[in-house]
Formats: sequence, structure tokens, C-alpha cells
Amino acid sequence: MASKRPAPETLQPRDIQQERAACSFDVDAMSCILPGSRTERDNARWLLSLLKDDPDHTFDKEDRVFQSRNERFLKGQQVSLRYFEIRNRHGLEKKDADMLRLFTDEYLPIQVAESMAQPTLMRQASTEQWAEWGPMVRSGRWLGCYMQTELAHGSNLSALRTTATFDHNSDEWIINTPEPSAGKVWIGGSGLTATYGVVMANLIISEKSYGMHPFLVHLRSLEDHTLLPGRRIIEMGCKLGAPAMDNGYTCFDSVRIPRSHLLQRFQTVSRDGVYEKRNAAAQVMTRGTMTLVRVGLCEIAAHHLARAATIAIRYAVVRRQGTSSTQPDQLEPKILDYASVQTRVLTALASAYAITFVSQHLRRLYTRMIAEIESEGNSALLPIVHGYSSVLKAVCTNESLAGIERCRRSMGGHGFSQAAGFDFERNQPNAGLIYEGENSMLLAGPSANFLVKQLNESRKRNGKVQYPELAYLELVASPSGSADAVSKRSQAVGVDQIDQPASLLGLLGFRAALLVERLAQHRSSTAGADGVSKHIDTNLAVRASTAHGAYLIGYAFSQLVQQLKSDSAASTKERYGVAVQDSHVAAVDALLRFHLIQNCILSPDMLSDFLELQLLSPVQLDRLRRTSATLLSGPIRRDALGLVESFDLDDWYLCSPLGSSDGRAYERMIEWMKREPLNHSGERGARDENGVVKGYHDGIGRLIRGEAVQFTERAKL
Amino acid sequence: MASKRPAPETLQPRDIQQERAACSFDVDAMSCILPGSRTERDNARWLLSLLKDDPDHTFDKEDRVFQSRNERFLKGQQVSLRYFEIRNRHGLEKKDADMLRLFTDEYLPIQVAESMAQPTLMRQASTEQWAEWGPMVRSGRWLGCYMQTELAHGSNLSALRTTATFDHNSDEWIINTPEPSAGKVWIGGSGLTATYGVVMANLIISEKSYGMHPFLVHLRSLEDHTLLPGRRIIEMGCKLGAPAMDNGYTCFDSVRIPRSHLLQRFQTVSRDGVYEKRNAAAQVMTRGTMTLVRVGLCEIAAHHLARAATIAIRYAVVRRQGTSSTQPDQLEPKILDYASVQTRVLTALASAYAITFVSQHLRRLYTRMIAEIESEGNSALLPIVHGYSSVLKAVCTNESLAGIERCRRSMGGHGFSQAAGFDFERNQPNAGLIYEGENSMLLAGPSANFLVKQLNESRKRNGKVQYPELAYLELVASPSGSADAVSKRSQAVGVDQIDQPASLLGLLGFRAALLVERLAQHRSSTAGADGVSKHIDTNLAVRASTAHGAYLIGYAFSQLVQQLKSDSAASTKERYGVAVQDSHVAAVDALLRFHLIQNCILSPDMLSDFLELQLLSPVQLDRLRRTSATLLSGPIRRDALGLVESFDLDDWYLCSPLGSSDGRAYERMIEWMKREPLNHSGERGARDENGVVKGYHDGIGRLIRGEAVQFTERAKL
Ligand SMILES: Cc1cc2nc3c(=O)[nH]c(=O)nc-3n(C[C@H](O)[C@H](O)[C@H](O)COP(=O)(O)OP(=O)(O)OC[C@H]3O[C@@H](n4cnc5c(N)ncnc54)[C@H](O)[C@@H]3O)c2cc1C
Ligand SMILES: Cc1cc2nc3c(=O)[nH]c(=O)nc-3n(C[C@H](O)[C@H](O)[C@H](O)COP(=O)(O)OP(=O)(O)OC[C@H]3O[C@@H](n4cnc5c(N)ncnc54)[C@H](O)[C@@H]3O)c2cc1C
Repeated sequence: MASKRPAPETLQPRDIQQERAACSFDVDAMSCILPGSRTERDNARWLLSLLKDDPDHTFDKEDRVFQSRNERFLKGQQVSLRYFEIRNRHGLEKKDADMLRLFTDEYLPIQVAESMAQPTLMRQASTEQWAEWGPMVRSGRWLGCYMQTELAHGSNLSALRTTATFDHNSDEWIINTPEPSAGKVWIGGSGLTATYGVVMANLIISEKSYGMHPFLVHLRSLEDHTLLPGRRIIEMGCKLGAPAMDNGYTCFDSVRIPRSHLLQRFQTVSRDGVYEKRNAAAQVMTRGTMTLVRVGLCEIAAHHLARAATIAIRYAVVRRQGTSSTQPDQLEPKILDYASVQTRVLTALASAYAITFVSQHLRRLYTRMIAEIESEGNSALLPIVHGYSSVLKAVCTNESLAGIERCRRSMGGHGFSQAAGFDFERNQPNAGLIYEGENSMLLAGPSANFLVKQLNESRKRNGKVQYPELAYLELVASPSGSADAVSKRSQAVGVDQIDQPASLLGLLGFRAALLVERLAQHRSSTAGADGVSKHIDTNLAVRASTAHGAYLIGYAFSQLVQQLKSDSAASTKERYGVAVQDSHVAAVDALLRFHLIQNCILSPDMLSDFLELQLLSPVQLDRLRRTSATLLSGPIRRDALGLVESFDLDDWYLCSPLGSSDGRAYERMIEWMKREPLNHSGERGARDENGVVKGYHDGIGRLIRGEAVQFTERAKL
Repeated sequence: MASKRPAPETLQPRDIQQERAACSFDVDAMSCILPGSRTERDNARWLLSLLKDDPDHTFDKEDRVFQSRNERFLKGQQVSLRYFEIRNRHGLEKKDADMLRLFTDEYLPIQVAESMAQPTLMRQASTEQWAEWGPMVRSGRWLGCYMQTELAHGSNLSALRTTATFDHNSDEWIINTPEPSAGKVWIGGSGLTATYGVVMANLIISEKSYGMHPFLVHLRSLEDHTLLPGRRIIEMGCKLGAPAMDNGYTCFDSVRIPRSHLLQRFQTVSRDGVYEKRNAAAQVMTRGTMTLVRVGLCEIAAHHLARAATIAIRYAVVRRQGTSSTQPDQLEPKILDYASVQTRVLTALASAYAITFVSQHLRRLYTRMIAEIESEGNSALLPIVHGYSSVLKAVCTNESLAGIERCRRSMGGHGFSQAAGFDFERNQPNAGLIYEGENSMLLAGPSANFLVKQLNESRKRNGKVQYPELAYLELVASPSGSADAVSKRSQAVGVDQIDQPASLLGLLGFRAALLVERLAQHRSSTAGADGVSKHIDTNLAVRASTAHGAYLIGYAFSQLVQQLKSDSAASTKERYGVAVQDSHVAAVDALLRFHLIQNCILSPDMLSDFLELQLLSPVQLDRLRRTSATLLSGPIRRDALGLVESFDLDDWYLCSPLGSSDGRAYERMIEWMKREPLNHSGERGARDENGVVKGYHDGIGRLIRGEAVQFTERAKL
């Protein structure tokens, strides 16, 4: 007998509907809570609609994964143009334009023009320069790129070797690439698209070096787009991802530019070559701008993780797999009902919420900082926000990529097909680990240094800490603090209390405090810098930074839940533009607890810290494991689909046959397969008119017809 | 002044030579020790030369990463044909043919013909069937594929829905796909290439189902390669990797095949439809064959990890980055001198050695098992070797991919360029996690079940364990064993002893023993199977399996070092065909200790187990950290280049401009960039005759000329 079970494709639409019906809260309201308000949610929808409803279907992307790099790149040019048209027509401000670009879901050649070149020009050009250049840059007519990295130098900026030498005679800068390895490389948009570059070069006047400075260099003719003399630019070749982006490799052969093309907000060079600094106070803001870029990277990390979780969870509720030995005729279980699938994907879901909230927290801090600087000239928050952003950039992008990969793999074999819709993973989620501070370096360096500095400073203030996100440092900063005391205090938390948000956040603080303390101690005690000492330093630094990152994320998430819980119905309604119900609070609260327990404590790479620092007793640990499993297999499992669908990611955007909202994963995958060029004849296809693979006759056909070499028994050696 | 430092490209060839000179041992001899003997090493070289020296350059692959999927696929057809010609001409046996395919470095359409279809036919066809089919299959004239997975069913084999119904009238099987989701999918080679399929289908006679059985089904005409009637096959669309492989999607519309096309070694069906089992004893060997496939996957995992480590370490000794604030004019350090780079790449190096040795160990066990079965009919080893192979398949492929990714990322931005030579990562290293037992399922299921069974059986034998790789179970199997005693014993190891291989291996055994014990206890105690209990089970199962895997690997590695240490010069000479020197033993010993400490204990996801199980005191832990750092920054750092170059991977094979043996990373990357099609005009290129991006005039050109929409200030909302 053939199987008695119904055909799998007939179950899928029903399965997903049942899951949707089982959700404990109203998804529409949650989709407003997540981005912060109904206005935000609707604004995102509006922005997406600008792309989705494009009359020429410029932004449709079903065929992308089937395209060669050339095809995808050339399509990217059209997408770039249309992006500018839409952004210009609607006069989109930076935040909206950034989101619009994100929604194009392609790393576009004009990405760096918008994210780096334009901001750098805006803040580093003098008022006069910006008055002249601004309109051209803003409208996209001067397409910029940001030329900093060289083939031989990336993170070590001070060692860049491109020079800008002042020529007294002609009143010009001579931009020069001294040797091929000093060519600018990785420069987004420079390979075939940009017309201008902001070039970072070593400013030299009369043999004296003044260090790195930004210069505006014209690259391509505005008439016919050909390269101007002395600029040698090629595209730098294919990458892991980002096929539509033309990262270029550029050498300058003593290219002359006017003296006035040094960006002059912070320094000027006079006709007779006198270098003068100015506006030094405002220069701190360049760090502020870097912070803003990092805030954006955290938001993007949350977005892509949410996307991966949406796909994986949708698939996991329509994929049934596994036969019970006792009840072989029963429906197979949904894979989301397996413990290991739950652990893998629901941790990603919780992370997506957590990173969303910490990004909002960081953006609010950033906004407050700017307001304080602008209104009171008070830049005290700057190093703090900068410090937070350096750890969060690394922690959020790391966790996002890891979570995306867990989601993809949870889908088994089908996760290896592009029908899963994970092509995006090779673009931003991977590349984001590298730029704006390579993650390993950030964690071992700046973000750890920041923490040690904060600890030392608070010690000077008798252990007082000003910022709530660093308050845990008081545990070790005050003269009375000791590791022993912290450990005792931690293990004294009652089993009934240990799995509550406040205790959990406390635990994260204990861990961070002790690790920062250890690091500070190591740094103050070691005289030498031998290999062993360096390893101990790096190990502690990365752990301290990671612990701080986990704390920050947990802090922001807790704050949000706290606020939802304590606010009156009226005030939440006012804040979010929707009626927040108890069911929403309960769902987010469960997710918070789960996140704190599972992602921040039980995850094996975190747990070792808690155990080593003796912050958890065996009974406490056992309780956490049970609570985590209870949440996971209970409310979070039940609400999983609603929780991801609250991210409000549209089918058109997801472009994932296996993760589509109607659950028809199998039917949609079959439809999708048919687009594959290998199935077609003609120029782009791989088959002849008979549907046989091209070249068959003189290729594999020879083997099959017996015309190729026959098997010879080998003389045994 | 421009920089006083020499141009970076001038340092690279010198740097790599100096590193080579600093190595403490003779690399040629190590390259024989690694594969097991000079004969093995030379055989691998010979096999590679068959590809490298191909007169038509069929196997050259510099252009691969620049090709569209179509181009790469069609090239793969040629490569497949030539592979068969070489294999046939030299009469290569399986092991050599497998290596030859590995060296083609492409997932070929004929891969599954060789790795699955042919072995299945060989072992499941009757003697008569094989006598008829064998010569055609072996020579490649009948290109097979292995058709098991369906769109809706992968790991749950018992639920496959394709049917093979016996037609009494015509004496035929009717192979049928009941609904689209029962179409065979993922079938390697079926999309455009294979002529035959081994189809797994539910055998039905007179309405009675006999479960899954293999049938030989003819798919494509041997005359003109067109599909035979009733076979609907399309290529299943692009994937994360494996572009040259045509994984197909196939539906059978009541296709009729002769009764004799049921593979009949283990059962026959008579003319009147009587089903009869036979050769049941020999059927156990089907598990043996699966084991062999898994041995192969472990070997491949080692190979690719070695490859990644070779590239990353070569690059890390020629990439200089970072300026000392006190001595700004000094040469920048090589990135391999940073603690975090050392930790990331040298752990991968140690893993590559470890996985190499455990694969050899497993293969020897496999060979012994076959010998015992063939000579004495004794299959006692079968479940053991099968059990080991299920955990090792998962642990080795997981660790290999993680290590490859660490290596790639250690290269910073340049690791994101295909010039790094990591394109291979998306093929086998990723796909290998999924087939032959999806890794998550293996760890939580079969491999954990195996361990619990072994523990229970040894309890029946008064705690005695027969196999040395499981001897640690005696700690908890014997009536006197207790977790407490194990923990005491572990913490009692003296600080001077703790970092020695024997103690370290002991520690791994303690961990594995206690986790298997906990799992067994959990399984015997829980009545219900609620969510919490399932989570606890999965968590313990995965940890126990992982711990056992780490132990097995450590055991095999230790055995090898032990043998090198204890053998006389003469006997090592005889074994390896080279004079093994003290320097080799010292180098491998250092790597072993480092592997055991860093990869198996200190790695954060491992450490939490040791701490939770109270197997490490703070002083012991501190000692391990220091020893690891000492090894890492000392002998292993010094020998790193020699250690990877002992894997004997040729430049032609690596195809990595950034990881080339002459160290000229920058010059080679520049040469490589020029191949990028975006830099060329003509049909495959992206530029017009003037070198301007195609479509510029009507595309981005409109924006630049000001013909596109201009920026409009948006009415503030
Ligand atoms: C997709 C993409 C787009 C980009 N776009 C642009 C662009 O538009 N414009 C532009 O100018 N650049 C761009 N970049 C370049 C990017 O900014 C650099 O790649 C980045 O700064 C990292 O530098 P690197 O690649 O030189 O890495 P390296 O500095 O060479 O790092 C290599 C390795 O060494 C380690 N390391 C290096 N220094 C230290 C140290 N002091 N201490 C410890 N470890 C160290 C790192 O952790 C890393 O593992 C882009 C890069 C990518 C991948
Ligand atoms: C590159 C590639 C080549 C392949 N080639 C072939 C081929 O030539 N011929 C062929 O027949 N097949 C082939 N396959 C298919 C392959 O064998 C299957 O993908 C594999 O068996 C996994 O099954 P699945 O994809 O259905 O995963 P599923 O079984 O659907 O698993 C999905 C998820 O559910 C989880 N899960 C499923 N069941 C359980 C359970 N009982 N308990 C706990 N968790 C569970 C898994 O861990 C996974 O996370 C290939 C696959 C790939 C990726």
C-alpha cells in the first residue's frame, strides 16, 4: 500500500494558518511596537511600496540568484538610477533614504556615495566648499566614493602611503600612488560608477608630512564617463558576495587637483603653503559620525536576522519530518517541534528582538548626544556613545551572522538551495563584520580599552559610575568591591528569583564587572609584553567586551519591557499608536527572559564565563536550563510565527519560495526551479533544442557511446 | 615626507622565505609523515600531476570564480569526461579515483555516480545483475545517480512516497511519483547528465507494502541523451555552492521497468509476485559501506581545513599591519604575530592535523573490520566503527567548516575577495554538513544512542569496556564509579602534569564519561517526554556526542605521537619511508598538546563542560591557559608555515593569489583582478569600447547629466 498520509503539499497552507491562529497576541499591534510606533511601521511600508510598486519592476529580484555577476551588476546600475529618482522625487532624508537602499536588498554601487562619501564631504568640507559642491553631491550628479583603504593597508590608517604633495608653483596638490600596493582598493562604487572620490592621503608640504587628510578628486568625465588622465581604475574582482557592487582598485599617477580640493573645515593650506588647523572643537564630531554609521550597522544586523528567522520559522512550521515508531500513520511532526530546531531558530528570533531594541536604545543615545552638543556644546556623552557603538557594532553583527547561519542550516538540505532565500547572507551580513572596525580588532582593542578606562575613571570618583549601562562597574570600582563578594552575592540569588529579568541582568552585570576588573588588573600588573601576556590580554579583552555587549543588549531589552509593563494603556497607546495588550507584554517578557537565559548565559561560549567566575551554583544552573526549556517549548514555540511576522517583512521583499507567507513551500519551490537557466535553451541556457545539455555530443556523449577510454585494470604497484 | 618604510610588495618574498627558514623541522619528511608514508605522499602528487599536466588544461581553474553558473556547469561536463578518461586509462581503484575527483576541486555531475550509485549497485545487485551491469557502470558508460531524497522527505526515509508497484500482467515495476512533493530532488547528476538512476521506492505487491527498495531505472537515451518517456527531470536551481553539479528534480509518471531491475542481492520477487529475502547476513555490510562514505567525509574535512590554514597562514606572514606608537618607523608586525590572529588560525592548523590523524585511525579500523568479516565472518566491530563514524562525520565536518571560516575571516577585508581562494568553502565544506546524516541529527540521535548503548552494555559486563576509544566509560560503568570521584580525581592532577598529553586526554575522557552517564541517567529516569525533558535530552546528547568526538580525535592524535616517540629510527624509517627526526616529533607533540588544550578544553564552548562538571580547578585552568599561550606564541607560531606546507598543497591546486607560495600576495592579486569580466568589453564583459560601463548613457549617465529627477525638499510630515 502506498502511504495513508495526505500529500505533504496539501497540509502546508493549513498548517501555517493554524500556527497563525494559535498566536497569543495581535500581530498588527506587535508590528508597531517593534519599530517603535505605528508611524514608523507605516513609514517602512510606504518606503517599501515605492520599490514594490515601481511601474517598470526595476526592483523585482526573483531572477537575481540566477544571474551572472555581469547581469546582476548591470541590473544594479538601473536599480541605482531609479533609487536616486525615488529618493529625489520624495526628498527623502538620510534615515529614509538609508532604509530605501536597505529595501533594494542589493549592495549598490551608489551605497558608499550615500553612506560615506556624502557624509564625509558634508562634515569635513568648509562652509564655502559645501555651498559649492553640496547641491551636486546631494542630487547624485556627483557620484562619490570613499577612498581610504589601500591594497597593503586597511586597519592601520596611519600607514597609508598615497601622498598629496603641495606644488607651490602651480598651487595644486599632486595625488600619487607610490607603488602598486598603495593603490586604493575595496572602494565601493569606484570600479565603474563613481565620478568623484574622497581620497585619504598623506598631506605633504615642503617635505613635511601632516598625516592623513581628505581630498576631493575628480575621477571620471561628467561628459562621457571616461577616466580622466592619470587615474587607473579597474574593478577588483569577484567577492564572496556583493556582486552588484563595483569595488575598485585605483592608482593615481601624479594627478593634479586644485589646492581648494583639500577638505577645509578643519584645516586650510594657504597659497604659500602654510598649514593651519581650525574648528578643532567641532572635529570631535567626526567620531560622532562614525558612531552613527555603527548605529546603522546594528539596525541592519537586526533586520537581516529577523529576516532569516522569518524564513526559517515559516519553513519549520510547514516542514513535517519524522515517523513515530509507535504511531507510524500519524502525521509527521513539524520540525519546529524538535528541541534542536527550537534551540537553533528561536534563539535567533530572540536575538533579532534584542538587537532591534538595543539599536533603538543606541540611536536614542546618539540623538541625545547630538542635542546636547548642539544646544549646550556639551560633548560629554560622545566617548560613551562611541564606546557603546564600538562594542555593539561587533557583537550585533557577529551574533546576527551566526544566527542567520543557524536559521539557514536548520532547514536541512533545502537551506542549501537558493530557494531558501538566503543569498543576502553573503552581502551585508558577512561584509559588515569587516568594515567600520574589523570585529576581532574592535573587541580586543577599542571596546575593551573603553571599559578599562571607564573603570579607572570611576575609581577616581570613588567608584561612582554616571551611566546606567555601566553601573555594574560599581561592583568592582568601589574600594570595597571584590570578586569574592560578587560571586557570593550572585550565588545567593534564590532559585525562584534567578530566572527573573532583574536577576538575570544582574548576573550579566556581575560577569562583565569581573571580566573588566580582571583585564584592568592584568594590564596594570604586567611589565613585559611577551607572547603569553599578550594572549592573556586578548583573551580577557574579548571576553570583557563580549560581556559588556551582552549586558548592553540585555539592558536595552529589559528597559523596553519594563516600560511596556509600567506604562498605562493610554501612554502606550500614545507612544506606539496602538493598543498594547497584556498579551503583547507577556510575549515580549517571555522572549526577554529566554534571551537573557539562553543567549546570554546558557549558550556554551557564555556559560564558561559564568562558571569560571563562580557566578552560578549547580541548582541555579539547573533552574535556568529548565526555565529556558519551558519557555522554549511553551510560549515561545507557540508564538514563534507571530513573533517573526511582527517584523512585517513582505513576501515580495523576502523573495523566499520556502519561506513564503502562504506556506506553500513545495509548490513554490517547484515553480522557482523552472527559472534556472540550466533548464533553458538559447543563449542564456545550457540546453540545445532537444533539451540535451549543450556540447553533449562531443563531451560526456563520447563516454556514454563508448568512444572514450575504457577502464584498464592497473598493474598493481 | 612620504613613508620611510620599504614598499610592502618588496618585503613579501623575503618575509615568506625567512619564515620558511625558521621552521624547526624538515618539511619534506613531515609531508610524508602526515599522509602516512612517502608512498602515499608521492601517490597524491602523481594523481595531482595527472590533472595539472593535462595537455588541454582541462583542469585549470583560474577563471572559475569569474564564470556564470552556466559557464561553470558546461566546463564541468568537460572536466567530468576527462576525469573518466584518466581514471579509466590508469585503472584507478576507488581510493585513488576518489582522490582524483577531490583534486578536480569541483563538485562534478559524475560525483554521485562514483560515490553512491556505483557502490550501491555493486553491493545490492545480485551477482548476475552485477555481471551484466558492472562493466557498463564501471567504465562510466552507464552514468548513474542515487535517487533517494524527495522534495518533502529527506532524513525520514521511511516516509518516502515514490512507489514501485508490481504489475503481474506485464511482469514489470511501475515507478510512480504520487504528487509533486514526492519528486526526487537534490539528486546529484540527474539534472542534465546521468543516464541511469538507482531509485529508492516503496515496493508494493498486491497492495502490500514492503518498504524502501532500490531499483535501477533508465532515465535518458543512450543514443541521443533525450529523456525517456514518463521521466520529467529539471535541474533544481542554484544553490549556495556546487554550481557545476546538476542536482535534479524528477517525477516519474508510471514508468515501467522490468521486474529484473529491482536490485536483487538481498531480496527477489518471483514472476508470480512472491517476495523473498535472502543473504540477510551480508546485509549488515550496507552499514559498513555508509561507514566508508563517512570515513571519506572526515578525510575531505581534514583536507579542506588544511587548505584554508595554508592560505591563511601564508597570508598572515606576508601581511604586515599596525604601527607601534613608540617606534613608528619600524616595520609593521606580521599579522600572525597578533594574539587574536594566532588563536584563530593556529587552532585551525592544529585541527587539520588532528582530523587528518583521526581519519586515518578510522580508516584503519574500517579496514580491520572488513578483514575480520571477510576472514572470520566476525562483524563485531561493525557497530563500533559505525558508531565512531557517525560522531566523527558530524564533529569533523562541523569543526572543519568553522575552522575554514575562522581562517578566511582572519584575512580581514581581503578574505572577502575571491582572490583569497576560498570559493571551495561553499561546496563540500558546507554541503558535507547535510548529507550522510545531517549533523545536528547525528549528534542528538545516533551517535548519542550509540554511547548510551555502549555504557549500558559495559555495565552488563561489570563495567568492562572492550575498545580503547571507549575505555573512559569504565569510569562510570563500574559499580564503584561516581561523578564525584571523577571530579576529585581530575582536580587532583598536579599542575605540572595537567598540561601533558596523557593528563589532557584523561580530562577529555572524564568529561565524555560524565556526560554519557548523565544522558543515560536522564533517559532511564524520565517517564514523560514533555518539552523540558526533550530539551534536556537533546542538550545532553549533543554534549555527550561532542565530548566523545573530541576524545576520539585526541585519542588518535595521541596514539600517533606516542608511536612516533617510541618507535626506533629504523622502524619509523620503514613505516614512513623517511628519516623521522626529533624535530618532527617535537613539532607534532607541541601541536598535540596545543590541540588538546586549546581546541578541546579552553575553546569556550568546550570549557563550560569542564567547569560545570568540576573537572578543572582554577590553578589548573590558569596553567592550561599559560601553556596554550606559550605553545601558541612559541613553537607553533615559529613552525606555522612549515606545518601547513607539510600538507603539500600545490599552488596550482590552491589557486589562491593571496596564499601563493612565493608570498607575492599583492602583485598576484593585482594580476588576478584583471581577469574580472567587469573589466572587459565584448559579450562577456561589462564595458563598451571606451571602457565605460555598458548602458551608461541611458542609465546612471542620466543622473549625472542632470536629466533624472532632481532632489525635492519634502514637505515635512
Ligand atoms: C565589502 C567591503 C567594502 C569596503 N568598502 C570600502 C570603501 O568603500 N572604502 C574604503 O576605503 N574601504 C572599504 N573597505 C575596506 C575595509 O575598510 C577594510 O577591509 C577594513 O578596514 C579592514 O582592514 P583590512 O582589510 O586591511 O584588514 P587588516 O587590517 O589587514 O586585518 C587583517 C587581520 O589582521 C588582524 N589585525 C590587523 N591589525 C591588527 C592589530 N593592530 N591588532 C590585532 N589584530 C590585527 C585583523 O583582526 C584581521 O584578522 C571595504 C571592505 C569590504 C570587505
Ligand atoms: C549538496 C547536496 C547534495 C545531495 N545529493 C543527494 C543525492 O545525490 N541523492 C539523494 O538522494 N539526496 C541527496 N541530498 C539530500 C540529502 O541527503 C538530504 O538533504 C539530507 O538527507 C537531509 O534531509 P533533509 O534535507 O530532508 O532535511 P530534513 O530532514 O527536512 O531536516 C530539516 C531540519 O529538521 C531537523 N530534523 C529533521 N528530522 C528530525 C528528527 N527526527 N529529530 C530532530 N531533528 C530533525 C534537522 O536537524 C534539520 O534541521 C543532497 C543534499 C545536498 C545538500
